Amino acid sequence: MNNLNICIAGLGNVGSELIKSIEENSLYFEAKSSIKINIVGITAKDKNKKRDFDINNYNWFDNPKDMVLLDNCDVLVELIGQEKGISYELIELALNNKKHVVTGNKALIANHGKNLFQIAEKNSLALCFEAAVAGGIPIIKTIKNDINLNKINKISGILNGTTNYILTKMDEDNLSFDSVLKIAKEKGFTSDQESKLDIGGYDAAHKLTILSTLAFGSVLNFENNHIEGISNIKIEDIHYAKKLGYKIKLISETSIIDDQILNVTGPKLLDEMNPLANVGNALNAVNVETDHLETLFLEGQGAGGKPTASSVLSDLYDISQNLTFNNLGFKIKNLIEYKKFSPENILNRYYLRIMTEDKPGVLSSITNLFSKTGISVEKILQLPEKVNSNLPIPIIITTHNIQNEILTKVIKKLEKLEFVKERIILLPIHNNS
Amino acid sequence: MNNLNICIAGLGNVGSELIKSIEENSLYFEAKSSIKINIVGITAKDKNKKRDFDINNYNWFDNPKDMVLLDNCDVLVELIGQEKGISYELIELALNNKKHVVTGNKALIANHGKNLFQIAEKNSLALCFEAAVAGGIPIIKTIKNDINLNKINKISGILNGTTNYILTKMDEDNLSFDSVLKIAKEKGFTSDQESKLDIGGYDAAHKLTILSTLAFGSVLNFENNHIEGISNIKIEDIHYAKKLGYKIKLISETSIIDDQILNVTGPKLLDEMNPLANVGNALNAVNVETDHLETLFLEGQGAGGKPTASSVLSDLYDISQNLTFNNLGFKIKNLIEYKKFSPENILNRYYLRIMTEDKPGVLSSITNLFSKTGISVEKILQLPEKVNSNLPIPIIITTHNIQNEILTKVIKKLEKLEFVKERIILLPIHNNS
Repeated sequence: MNNLNICIAGLGNVGSELIKSIEENSLYFEAKSSIKINIVGITAKDKNKKRDFDINNYNWFDNPKDMVLLDNCDVLVELIGQEKGISYELIELALNNKKHVVTGNKALIANHGKNLFQIAEKNSLALCFEAAVAGGIPIIKTIKNDINLNKINKISGILNGTTNYILTKMDEDNLSFDSVLKIAKEKGFTSDQESKLDIGGYDAAHKLTILSTLAFGSVLNFENNHIEGISNIKIEDIHYAKKLGYKIKLISETSIIDDQILNVTGPKLLDEMNPLANVGNALNAVNVETDHLETLFLEGQGAGGKPTASSVLSDLYDISQNLTFNNLGFKIKNLIEYKKFSPENILNRYYLRIMTEDKPGVLSSITNLFSKTGISVEKILQLPEKVNSNLPIPIIITTHNIQNEILTKVIKKLEKLEFVKERIILLPIHNNS
Repeated sequence: MNNLNICIAGLGNVGSELIKSIEENSLYFEAKSSIKINIVGITAKDKNKKRDFDINNYNWFDNPKDMVLLDNCDVLVELIGQEKGISYELIELALNNKKHVVTGNKALIANHGKNLFQIAEKNSLALCFEAAVAGGIPIIKTIKNDINLNKINKISGILNGTTNYILTKMDEDNLSFDSVLKIAKEKGFTSDQESKLDIGGYDAAHKLTILSTLAFGSVLNFENNHIEGISNIKIEDIHYAKKLGYKIKLISETSIIDDQILNVTGPKLLDEMNPLANVGNALNAVNVETDHLETLFLEGQGAGGKPTASSVLSDLYDISQNLTFNNLGFKIKNLIEYKKFSPENILNRYYLRIMTEDKPGVLSSITNLFSKTGISVEKILQLPEKVNSNLPIPIIITTHNIQNEILTKVIKKLEKLEFVKERIILLPIHNNS
């Protein structure tokens, strides 16, 4: 029997589901894989909070540091989730005292992981974080182990469930961003505090930072991200995109271009045939393109107690099976400090919505300006929805590939024209490759 | 540096791509993961066949058994692909002589794997077969390692690329089964010999046999499968299914019901919202449902030299990283001889197409018979496509869940009625769970 003594810091949704799962499945783990997971300590902020397991069955620690230093603790499971603070201190303490660590803490790994992985490697310890990216989808192990010898070209994903829920719901129920956000908060999908990280794209960017390290061996660096959230997405653009055969999703994408790293999280139009376009509700998904695989697409539950606990268990299984640990799929000394690819050089197809006066000559002025600056128009959609001819009408344009810098300059020029009545809406179109 | 000396038997598409990939990426493998893969021997049926790598760079063996017995061979990569014969002999020889084995041979594993895994376990050797199921998708390692501690409830998948290509093409181009099969053969997707295994559902059932062992620890036993192919699928049914919001796909599904194993491969109707419904062309996909994960969906290239070589590389990486090998995710002694779930007890929703005379009273006769036998009708579709009233017209019925045996009996009764003019078409509808 392979005995694994774990202590758990943080008993929210994930921590509680983990304990319940170990209680329920302990005999199954032993019979199937000869693993016995013993919970030798638990701790959380509030001992008296109502929980759906009995804390009296476990060794409770008021001071989490005492728990980590327990002689018989093999693994610290960190589920507090602070970006630094006590979460960082506990993980550092564990690694310095020869304990493995399992965490679901994406913000901590993305922002402050560098030093921790160094300690782990020096001490030949596991620092596992399957639960940090895409909930129950085992994307970390897929990249790190299962396709380790593939050269990755690009990873694109839907890495935040709340924003995907909001965009799906806006589309399906014809609701504005604000009304759906309200519903999401009422349903407990996101709190005021979380929703800033979710909606602003930061949570997805934390996860993308981790994926870009696994994919390209780039030093963990959150500063490498270009981030845009979804709070400016209008229901009209979801409608117009649909008429053109697209859906709008918050896409996180990492690739290496000219030896520079390009990590972008932002709303994008996706062809309805792209599997990412059909990822509904709060699901997450990741598409990996490699030298051997045109597409490897994984979809599943990106959050929630049970799915995330599954990823913690996956890490515990991994620790029980191995004697050496290659936490990032690359040795620390092989990690590369990539230069950040400059946003103005990004090449993309684009969707534009230009609200103009409804008068002759407007469209030709716009297309002339485009052709003069080398912007190649793919499609123009002028919609016959005149109700009141005093109101501005939308002109929807999609372009072929164009450098962001050139397009941005043209947009600035356009916005100064007297017949352009609102800020122009600009969204990139995802290239199916 | 971790040196892995491999010898390769079989130099078709996959074997050739494997060699080219090792040639091209050898420095990358060393730099990234400190692995050096040395090809110490190659063999194939025909030495003189034109290949896109230079066989003179390698140690060629006319007798593959001599190659396997090489002192410095650590791993046999078996890519000949015979269901038994020389493939089996070589693998057995390798395992008995303390060599690890990597194979992509699904038919061999499904039919004759039992004995080979016993030898591998006895000798603490790896017998890896990532390439045997779903080409480049690392589904074996996902189930065996990444979600090892999950209890699997059900696996459903599209496991054969050729049949998925045929069904996609019939749907998109409005062609009959026979015309698309002809195209598939012309394009080299399938040969006369292969196409029997593909179209008959046997190839998918081989793969399902392997997945059911990984999922439930069932003893490898091809006899457990219920198999139906796609050669009876008519373009009309693809059209009618679409009108009802379904696509027709060849689905392989494994689950345990009442302690009995139910492995079914056959054409099914899938709700268009189900990710499996949108798996196009020759892609493969697998959906896993567990106690922790409502859905874990993987999609990718199910065949082809490069994707399949990726899975072989994945196994070689695994062998290089481990000292012990849990080839099936279960110890051999823990494998269970499940009883086969009887087909007549299968509970499903169903689609029926009944070709009848176009005269009053027909529909009510049918629905009366249904209600008398406890079959609950979900929808009826009567199509106004009378061109010639002498020709039979289709009545399309979908049912709620009903035991196969009861429905089959009713169908036999119906087929005896004088107004029913053709064999009734019966297809199960996939339950989204």
